[in-house]
Amino acid sequence: MLKIGIIGLGTVGSSVVKILKENKDIIRSRAGVEIVPAIGVARNLQKHQDLDIVLSDNADDVLEDDSIDMVVELIGGVERAYEIVKKALKKGKSVVTANKALLAYHRYELQEIANSQGFGFEASVAGGIPIIRSLREGLSANQIISIKGILNGTCNYMLTKMINEGVSFSEVLKEAQELGYAEVDPTFDIGGFDASHKLLILASIAYGIDAKPEDILIEGIEAINSDDIFFAKEFGYNIKLLAIAKKDGNKVELRVHPALIKKEQMIAKVDGVMNGVSVVGDFVGETLYYGAGAGGDATASAVVSDIISIARGESTPMLGFKKLITNELSLVEADLIETEYYIRMSVEDEVGVLSKISSIFTDYNISIDSFLQKSSKNSGRTSLLFSTHKCQERKIKEALEKIEKLHFVKDKPSMIRIED
Amino acid sequence: MLKIGIIGLGTVGSSVVKILKENKDIIRSRAGVEIVPAIGVARNLQKHQDLDIVLSDNADDVLEDDSIDMVVELIGGVERAYEIVKKALKKGKSVVTANKALLAYHRYELQEIANSQGFGFEASVAGGIPIIRSLREGLSANQIISIKGILNGTCNYMLTKMINEGVSFSEVLKEAQELGYAEVDPTFDIGGFDASHKLLILASIAYGIDAKPEDILIEGIEAINSDDIFFAKEFGYNIKLLAIAKKDGNKVELRVHPALIKKEQMIAKVDGVMNGVSVVGDFVGETLYYGAGAGGDATASAVVSDIISIARGESTPMLGFKKLITNELSLVEADLIETEYYIRMSVEDEVGVLSKISSIFTDYNISIDSFLQKSSKNSGRTSLLFSTHKCQERKIKEALEKIEKLHFVKDKPSMIRIED
Repeated sequence: MLKIGIIGLGTVGSSVVKILKENKDIIRSRAGVEIVPAIGVARNLQKHQDLDIVLSDNADDVLEDDSIDMVVELIGGVERAYEIVKKALKKGKSVVTANKALLAYHRYELQEIANSQGFGFEASVAGGIPIIRSLREGLSANQIISIKGILNGTCNYMLTKMINEGVSFSEVLKEAQELGYAEVDPTFDIGGFDASHKLLILASIAYGIDAKPEDILIEGIEAINSDDIFFAKEFGYNIKLLAIAKKDGNKVELRVHPALIKKEQMIAKVDGVMNGVSVVGDFVGETLYYGAGAGGDATASAVVSDIISIARGESTPMLGFKKLITNELSLVEADLIETEYYIRMSVEDEVGVLSKISSIFTDYNISIDSFLQKSSKNSGRTSLLFSTHKCQERKIKEALEKIEKLHFVKDKPSMIRIED
Repeated sequence: MLKIGIIGLGTVGSSVVKILKENKDIIRSRAGVEIVPAIGVARNLQKHQDLDIVLSDNADDVLEDDSIDMVVELIGGVERAYEIVKKALKKGKSVVTANKALLAYHRYELQEIANSQGFGFEASVAGGIPIIRSLREGLSANQIISIKGILNGTCNYMLTKMINEGVSFSEVLKEAQELGYAEVDPTFDIGGFDASHKLLILASIAYGIDAKPEDILIEGIEAINSDDIFFAKEFGYNIKLLAIAKKDGNKVELRVHPALIKKEQMIAKVDGVMNGVSVVGDFVGETLYYGAGAGGDATASAVVSDIISIARGESTPMLGFKKLITNELSLVEADLIETEYYIRMSVEDEVGVLSKISSIFTDYNISIDSFLQKSSKNSGRTSLLFSTHKCQERKIKEALEKIEKLHFVKDKPSMIRIED
């Protein structure tokens, strides 16, 4: 018998208790041992009376109890969760967590102390999709060339509605909030921060690279408007918030931003609240993983799969490396990233506009791939929509700063990166 | 150091040697130990001189050598491979195989003798896609409600061409043969047998159910014609060869056949030579796995991932069950399967045709969902295309036998199952 203490009884924690009870028989036959949710820790005990589990409002009732073999940490946040998990590991308990923020900041420290007793975190990235295992075990023969993930269901729901139904950003945000897909303060999701935490976890497994959210390029979807949607449809693109990790030689790019991707790509077909991760390995080519990235039951499915793996006695190295590689890989500075760009600007309709803008692009050696001009009926303004060939991020930024200063340019020009 | 003997040096075997050499450093850091392809066994040694590995034409040079820790079996076929793998396991060596036929017939016997020393077979299903691990580990918390797999790249390539480009079955078969996607004798692929082997492996992990290819419904794609393609497009379907495992109560359906599936479903978007597997679990909902299902490098990626897992000391139960479940699940007889059907028949154009056919459907309690009549310009014949509501396979078959006997019905009526 394996006794589990669950710290945090929100939607995921409650689902963990439910799965362990409802699927008890098949879980026992798969794990080889009975798995018992012995105690649940929550702030408000009244709320959880129906869960049929011993309740406590003190995490130490789990951590100090030597009969508890495993701690499931589901309180979220960084520092308190870190203290709890460290204490559990030091007491010799195994740990399962769904906490992406904890791992975004402390995965390497945790790897040091986790060692052999088992540390599962499948639920921290892409909910129910077994992407951690796939990357760490299924693709372990490969140098990972790239990872492109749709890792935030809120953003994907909103962008899908905007592109398929022409709904505006503010309308769809309101709708997502009403449906419970977006928080009252949606910044963490729509600003790309949630996806960046998950990206850092995947990048550690792929590349053994240490970085914090502060170190990488993170842009949200707030600035996407109907002109962008128009351009995307016109040129056969979809718009997705992508979390991207890419290796080129001994450099690794890590970035989160909205991206234009060709509609025919498999990852472009991941719509609505669903998550999807495309991984390209040097021998396997592209593989893609799709499923529910959030929700109590899907996330709890991943938590319980980790519990079962630990019960089975599996001992995969936490971040996939048995021996730390003397890591010659380093992070590319955001300004040095090279990609294709889509650029949007709003101008007053007057003679010579296009030639002045073009000459600035030429000065920065930026070569234009396609161009669309779209006049707005009432405002007397015109939207100019460009896409470029590959160029350096810094050059684009400098060119756009210069263009912004032209007297006929209204608002700040904006850009979306294009991913092949 | 872990020394490996590779028996079979075809495209996959050669790729295994190549990966172990080219990705040696990252593999060592992931596995925690150096992995050395020590000896390769092939019939024609001359062909493999460029591989930079000790060669032999005698499998016993691997099996009898106590310094070899692991055997990679890549000769294919059932009985000789079974003897080799048994001998290796009995000698205490771990085994990795890509051999779906071996597992379709002997997986339970192999599980008995494999026990603790490690037995990997990720490469036996869907090439480079880590579907074995995902099902056995990533989704282990779930009762598996259904598996729907596009597990044969040849069929998927052909069906994609037929539906997207209107190419006929015989033309696309010829083209697939020229491109090396289809064998000279393509029966094993296009008849659904290859997919059935893979399905049985997945079904063992999902349900612990024992069955052989002979026990299940297997239909190929040979009968699909341009009328079927026309109907599919008209009603928003795609046609895929699906390998299906489904649980309903204590009954399990296992079947391989072409199926009409709505274009919006994620699995319907898996095109060309690619494979895809959709798995629905009771808590996780739908997850889908996509990638290259064949080819030397992709398959070898899976083989090497198994080698690394065994080197890491993982000990997941081979078919996912630590304790055999006293399995109350049993196979549904093919005739008792219930689904929706699409039916095609060719008739001479005369009065009363439709009413006579309709009355037979009514006799068998088969209710029609949609109907299309399509006249052929020259032949004087008309194609009648129906789709039905859910009904039992036996009733459809009996009704079609009766319809076939009507004097105005030309050729044997045919049907394709519809999957929601």
